Amino acid sequence: MNKKVGLQPGTLVYTGDRQSTIEIPITHYTYNHESFKKNSFIFRDNLFIELHPSHVNWLNIGGIHNTELIKKVGEAFNIDSLILEDLLNNSQRPKLEIRDDYIFITLKMISHSNKKNKYEYEQISFILFSNLLITFQENPFDVFDSIRCRIEKRSGRLRTKKEGYLTYSLIDRIVDNYFVIIEDLEERIDDLEDKVTTEPKKEDFDEILELKKELLKFRRALAPLKEVSSKFKDSDIQEYLGEDIDIYLRDLQDHIIIANESNDALFNRGNELLQLYHSTISTGMNEIMKVLTMISSIFIPLSFLAGLYGMNFQYMPELTWKYGYFFILSLMISIILGTAYFFKKKKWW
Amino acid sequence: MNKKVGLQPGTLVYTGDRQSTIEIPITHYTYNHESFKKNSFIFRDNLFIELHPSHVNWLNIGGIHNTELIKKVGEAFNIDSLILEDLLNNSQRPKLEIRDDYIFITLKMISHSNKKNKYEYEQISFILFSNLLITFQENPFDVFDSIRCRIEKRSGRLRTKKEGYLTYSLIDRIVDNYFVIIEDLEERIDDLEDKVTTEPKKEDFDEILELKKELLKFRRALAPLKEVSSKFKDSDIQEYLGEDIDIYLRDLQDHIIIANESNDALFNRGNELLQLYHSTISTGMNEIMKVLTMISSIFIPLSFLAGLYGMNFQYMPELTWKYGYFFILSLMISIILGTAYFFKKKKWW
Amino acid sequence: MNKKVGLQPGTLVYTGDRQSTIEIPITHYTYNHESFKKNSFIFRDNLFIELHPSHVNWLNIGGIHNTELIKKVGEAFNIDSLILEDLLNNSQRPKLEIRDDYIFITLKMISHSNKKNKYEYEQISFILFSNLLITFQENPFDVFDSIRCRIEKRSGRLRTKKEGYLTYSLIDRIVDNYFVIIEDLEERIDDLEDKVTTEPKKEDFDEILELKKELLKFRRALAPLKEVSSKFKDSDIQEYLGEDIDIYLRDLQDHIIIANESNDALFNRGNELLQLYHSTISTGMNEIMKVLTMISSIFIPLSFLAGLYGMNFQYMPELTWKYGYFFILSLMISIILGTAYFFKKKKWW
Amino acid sequence: MNKKVGLQPGTLVYTGDRQSTIEIPITHYTYNHESFKKNSFIFRDNLFIELHPSHVNWLNIGGIHNTELIKKVGEAFNIDSLILEDLLNNSQRPKLEIRDDYIFITLKMISHSNKKNKYEYEQISFILFSNLLITFQENPFDVFDSIRCRIEKRSGRLRTKKEGYLTYSLIDRIVDNYFVIIEDLEERIDDLEDKVTTEPKKEDFDEILELKKELLKFRRALAPLKEVSSKFKDSDIQEYLGEDIDIYLRDLQDHIIIANESNDALFNRGNELLQLYHSTISTGMNEIMKVLTMISSIFIPLSFLAGLYGMNFQYMPELTWKYGYFFILSLMISIILGTAYFFKKKKWW
Amino acid sequence: MNKKVGLQPGTLVYTGDRQSTIEIPITHYTYNHESFKKNSFIFRDNLFIELHPSHVNWLNIGGIHNTELIKKVGEAFNIDSLILEDLLNNSQRPKLEIRDDYIFITLKMISHSNKKNKYEYEQISFILFSNLLITFQENPFDVFDSIRCRIEKRSGRLRTKKEGYLTYSLIDRIVDNYFVIIEDLEERIDDLEDKVTTEPKKEDFDEILELKKELLKFRRALAPLKEVSSKFKDSDIQEYLGEDIDIYLRDLQDHIIIANESNDALFNRGNELLQLYHSTISTGMNEIMKVLTMISSIFIPLSFLAGLYGMNFQYMPELTWKYGYFFILSLMISIILGTAYFFKKKKWW
Repeated sequence: MNKKVGLQPGTLVYTGDRQSTIEIPITHYTYNHESFKKNSFIFRDNLFIELHPSHVNWLNIGGIHNTELIKKVGEAFNIDSLILEDLLNNSQRPKLEIRDDYIFITLKMISHSNKKNKYEYEQISFILFSNLLITFQENPFDVFDSIRCRIEKRSGRLRTKKEGYLTYSLIDRIVDNYFVIIEDLEERIDDLEDKVTTEPKKEDFDEILELKKELLKFRRALAPLKEVSSKFKDSDIQEYLGEDIDIYLRDLQDHIIIANESNDALFNRGNELLQLYHSTISTGMNEIMKVLTMISSIFIPLSFLAGLYGMNFQYMPELTWKYGYFFILSLMISIILGTAYFFKKKKWW
Repeated sequence: MNKKVGLQPGTLVYTGDRQSTIEIPITHYTYNHESFKKNSFIFRDNLFIELHPSHVNWLNIGGIHNTELIKKVGEAFNIDSLILEDLLNNSQRPKLEIRDDYIFITLKMISHSNKKNKYEYEQISFILFSNLLITFQENPFDVFDSIRCRIEKRSGRLRTKKEGYLTYSLIDRIVDNYFVIIEDLEERIDDLEDKVTTEPKKEDFDEILELKKELLKFRRALAPLKEVSSKFKDSDIQEYLGEDIDIYLRDLQDHIIIANESNDALFNRGNELLQLYHSTISTGMNEIMKVLTMISSIFIPLSFLAGLYGMNFQYMPELTWKYGYFFILSLMISIILGTAYFFKKKKWW
Repeated sequence: MNKKVGLQPGTLVYTGDRQSTIEIPITHYTYNHESFKKNSFIFRDNLFIELHPSHVNWLNIGGIHNTELIKKVGEAFNIDSLILEDLLNNSQRPKLEIRDDYIFITLKMISHSNKKNKYEYEQISFILFSNLLITFQENPFDVFDSIRCRIEKRSGRLRTKKEGYLTYSLIDRIVDNYFVIIEDLEERIDDLEDKVTTEPKKEDFDEILELKKELLKFRRALAPLKEVSSKFKDSDIQEYLGEDIDIYLRDLQDHIIIANESNDALFNRGNELLQLYHSTISTGMNEIMKVLTMISSIFIPLSFLAGLYGMNFQYMPELTWKYGYFFILSLMISIILGTAYFFKKKKWW
Repeated sequence: MNKKVGLQPGTLVYTGDRQSTIEIPITHYTYNHESFKKNSFIFRDNLFIELHPSHVNWLNIGGIHNTELIKKVGEAFNIDSLILEDLLNNSQRPKLEIRDDYIFITLKMISHSNKKNKYEYEQISFILFSNLLITFQENPFDVFDSIRCRIEKRSGRLRTKKEGYLTYSLIDRIVDNYFVIIEDLEERIDDLEDKVTTEPKKEDFDEILELKKELLKFRRALAPLKEVSSKFKDSDIQEYLGEDIDIYLRDLQDHIIIANESNDALFNRGNELLQLYHSTISTGMNEIMKVLTMISSIFIPLSFLAGLYGMNFQYMPELTWKYGYFFILSLMISIILGTAYFFKKKKWW
Repeated sequence: MNKKVGLQPGTLVYTGDRQSTIEIPITHYTYNHESFKKNSFIFRDNLFIELHPSHVNWLNIGGIHNTELIKKVGEAFNIDSLILEDLLNNSQRPKLEIRDDYIFITLKMISHSNKKNKYEYEQISFILFSNLLITFQENPFDVFDSIRCRIEKRSGRLRTKKEGYLTYSLIDRIVDNYFVIIEDLEERIDDLEDKVTTEPKKEDFDEILELKKELLKFRRALAPLKEVSSKFKDSDIQEYLGEDIDIYLRDLQDHIIIANESNDALFNRGNELLQLYHSTISTGMNEIMKVLTMISSIFIPLSFLAGLYGMNFQYMPELTWKYGYFFILSLMISIILGTAYFFKKKKWW
């Protein structure tokens, strides 16, 4: 966010860490029930896109690190610079905004990273005009392959519907993937819970902290979606999305609520992991203290007794008794047995 | 949920773990105040159901693991595929949805499992048309025997009422059973509290964790019901359920609220169990530390004294005193008594 | 609640533990400003009550363990069986319900039990018709003696008002008694706090747990009353209670809110008691650890020194020094003083 | 509150602990922009107050422990007995009530007590008629001297305004004093925080508990004021207070909100003090444990070694070696150094 | 706040700690799209400001410690004394107030202090008339240089817009700077988390406390802004700010919400730092206890054995055995190995 301090509102700055020299692939899908066209090209300075008015148009922009491109798209379709600023800002929280000509939705696409236990957070923004959907991704990788496949193979109802349904389908796909992440997180928590209640280690401790940060990050991507989805009922929005999409949107909203509830439950369990860690450790410490106490309680008095008869006084009558040694040995054994009985009774053993 | 990622919305997938080859029993009850007919059969590829327009019709489907059957039911009664998807998804949270021709309610039927301290969670869905109630269960076992009995024996007002009252009765029966579970959980908590405040063991610790997971699961089945029951007041719903059913629904809503409150109270007590466990353990540890301290405080100085006179210096005048040994013995006893008095005064004893 | 599982809604079952053979006294008060009549009898199979239309009628039923009686009352005054079911269910939470002919209020009367630190929870229900108030108690003992006295002695405004004011007076009396309980609980907490911050014992620990359960139970009786009292503003209710009663009801609502706030404050303090208990104990443990450390730190090294010169090597030059013993003694005293100084400086002493 | 149980609503009972024989001073201010009159007298059985219709009238009653007086005031100005009951009840929470002829406001005046770290809570009630303000204090001491001074010296706008502005000014003065208390509490917390993080003592622990009770009490006086101040917007109230007073009331409401926020912040910090106390203590304990461990770890093995060569076996070859003693001494020094190095490496030192 | 107790409402008192003799620079910007004038002077007793009706007027007052100046400004522009009181009170929480002729906004400008890890909180107030914006700062240093630059260089849309847009730009700049502080706090927390989970020190503990106070202070500056920004939608306010500014205000509100959310997240992490600190310390303590236990468990019994054979009884047969010594030595080694095996098995090692 630092990059942006002091700049005029609406100034376009990409806040992510992709280099501006990486090429940006653009894909333009045009389809209706009968025909289908896909036009893929790389952005170099110029942007010429021809919309097909009677078809569904989906323009997918595979990168936002080149502000030149974003500016050109903004000019071509007359998009407000505040909107463009938001979609370039990868710490933007999910939101939905209605403008006169379009609605703007931005959210986080979350997928497994190559690294174990790491997730990829990608800012994805939708600008939905009445006859065009533009999607902006941080990089060309996404979770939309099954949807592209459905478009190309004309399976399902996607080809018979308008841009609104396409938007819904894409968001639904993203939300579906949240559940994959939730399941993964759930497994990690189950795993950690097991480890932590049996044999807690320092590295588990670190992993718990790691997991908690992950859950916090996930929650911040997920929680604002509830607000976004509650706006779906808005009549202004349904105008853009199409009215027959109403039950789909309710279904989607339902999924978002479940995802949030699951996440909250995970969050609580995540918070309890640290407690569990400590309670297991303190239980173990108790064990240790018991052993220490038992050994000390038995042998410290015995050592004293032994030391007593190790004194070099000239006149110590017991030392001259014939069975003095055996008497003391018996006394010691009695002490051991007595202490053991005491511990047994106290249930420390 | 994983099974469903990337599929088109409305695709029918059963998410539970019953095998699709298990046979599904279907029961069709037709009754009015005078007559009553029960038709039970096993689903094999074909589904032919004859409704009796002037009677109450209740179609009970004893399994949802065969998507073929669900699809056929959906086609026969013109049920939206999104609804079918929800009722097949056994991680669906309880909800109520109004469609043009029917209302859809899904919730969890919870009963004792064969295993001790385990509960069976079964997804149960209601689709209520104006002259037909279809119920979908995950397996044929349910808590409805008393209701079937009342239908067959014509006892109570069930036979004189419409499908709405039947729906209410079934849900009421399910909610009644929640209280059985609550009581069971309450007993387990009482039990654990007793154990944990007297003699906490590692297995109690594990049982607390187990119980907390159970309570969390129970809460997730119970909490959304409050929302569902608050929709009962909706006039659209009362149309389907019948207006004279209003006071019954309020009663049911009351029960749901009480169940939720009881569950919340249990939840709090469950959370405190871990604390109790630790506080008892740390109280015990304190006990142990006191013993260790007392023994050490008494015998370590005495051992030193004994060691002192065990030294082999050639010139140690005390050693040659006649009553040196007895003098030292007296000194030691004084130390023991002094320390004991000190502890007494500090109330450590 | 278990007794009721699987029964048809509206089935009358008493869920308390009074035996159904105990006799139930019924009292019927009829009064207006001028005259007053009291009719007390024991219920045996028959119920014949004559209402006096121009008078205030108060029918007090001193027990609900005989479902036969309740059924008869229900029939006589045309009370819905769901209402009767609620008033028999002693785990029913406080609630207010408006029916066409009457309003139904149920709540808990709480009084001191004979046993120390135990409170008696009694389910009490009001059914207020336009010219009759019926009250149902679990047993004949109640907190209404001062009100009966005011009726009989014609003191105060009670005799000049209608059934609505009587209802208000009875509820007000019950709420007044809550404050007695709150004061008692407050004293117990003050007491425990004192004990626990000076000299915590195992039995205090148990008493804290006991108290917390008591507070939880009290809260569950008290909290729903806020909701009930908020309904007093309802115009439908004011019709039954009489409009001139408005300021009394606001006063009552005020008391209920104060009672709830006091209870919440007690609840918080109750929760902190366990913390205090542990913090006092751990402070004490710290004390103990310090003593242990000091004694060990001083005498373990000294013992070593003594042991050193207790070795039996043939050639140990120090042993033959004339003042070797005194030198070692001085060294030991220096060590004691040095360690004491170190502890003093560390402020452990 | 106990004093009142079972009495008829509206019965006047003073719940504080001032004796009813103490004399009650009454002051009657009459003023307008031009003239000013002050009439002070002691109540003895009779109450004769002459209102000056075209002037502002302020009747200040300096005590409420004489119910006779209160009853007389109630009769003279036709005040509802429920209101009188509330103003006599010094555990009444702050509230505002509108009646047909007057509004009633009661709140707590809090000031420094003579005792250190103690605050004086005084119940103060306002009854505002259209041409008279009556204030009831528990005792004659208050925080209004600056206002009396402004009335007498005709400074500021007080003399040019009506009773509504006077009421506002008095309440504003009381709220101003809350900030003095807040500041005092803040200083005490800062102080305790310092003590507790450097050198916690048992008396700090007690002071924390004391402070927490004080904060709780303060919060209970403060929190309901938010509700009271939110009613200032009510048009019925503005009628009594005068419409031009609107911006003053908003300012007052603002102060009340700030006072509440500050108090909440203090409350949180107060809660954390106990945690800090324990964390400092447990950090200290850790220190102590380290010393104990180090000394034990070094000297217990050494003592063993010394004891070994103190054994009296006839045949122990080492004892006869010429440099056996020096060899063992060197071994012991090596052990000391080795252990020290181990601790150094573990960063325990 | 103490300075103000007992004063009449609307009395002007500066509550900060700048001395009243410091000179106050005043800057008056007048600009429209074409021309631009800047007039800077120092306040000495007199204030003469000429507004340019067809231009945007921005009067920046670089200090509020001279109440004389504030009073003069108030008189010149007819500002309510309650408003002036608020802007002089540097413990005023952020708020927005609408008056007949102007709106008043006050908030906190937060910037890095010269000292490390310290932030400068400056009270800044806006009074927006229809053709004049007055800003009051506590001192002349601010974060507005980039805006002054944009005015002077005619860059961006600032010069083409009215006072409303200028106000928005200034507040937006202040909010932008909050993110700088948030980032800084985030880094400090990351840093502390690292330190505290690896090697916690007493000074980290103090730093955590420091940071928590900082976060609390920050939150109190930030949280009320949410309320302020929610008022932006008010039509009365949009009148002053200009209607075309609507989308900018929504953007600003968005930023304020994000800032609050980030701050809340930081707050939670700050709270967990103390927990982490203690958990790391208690894990370390566990380590230490283990070492102590192991050494004690091994050597205390051995010492006893050695002491046993150091006794001076005349008749101890073992002492005369030829290999008695070696037998005992072997026994001791077995004990060491046995205990080590026991620890290994218990996984304490």
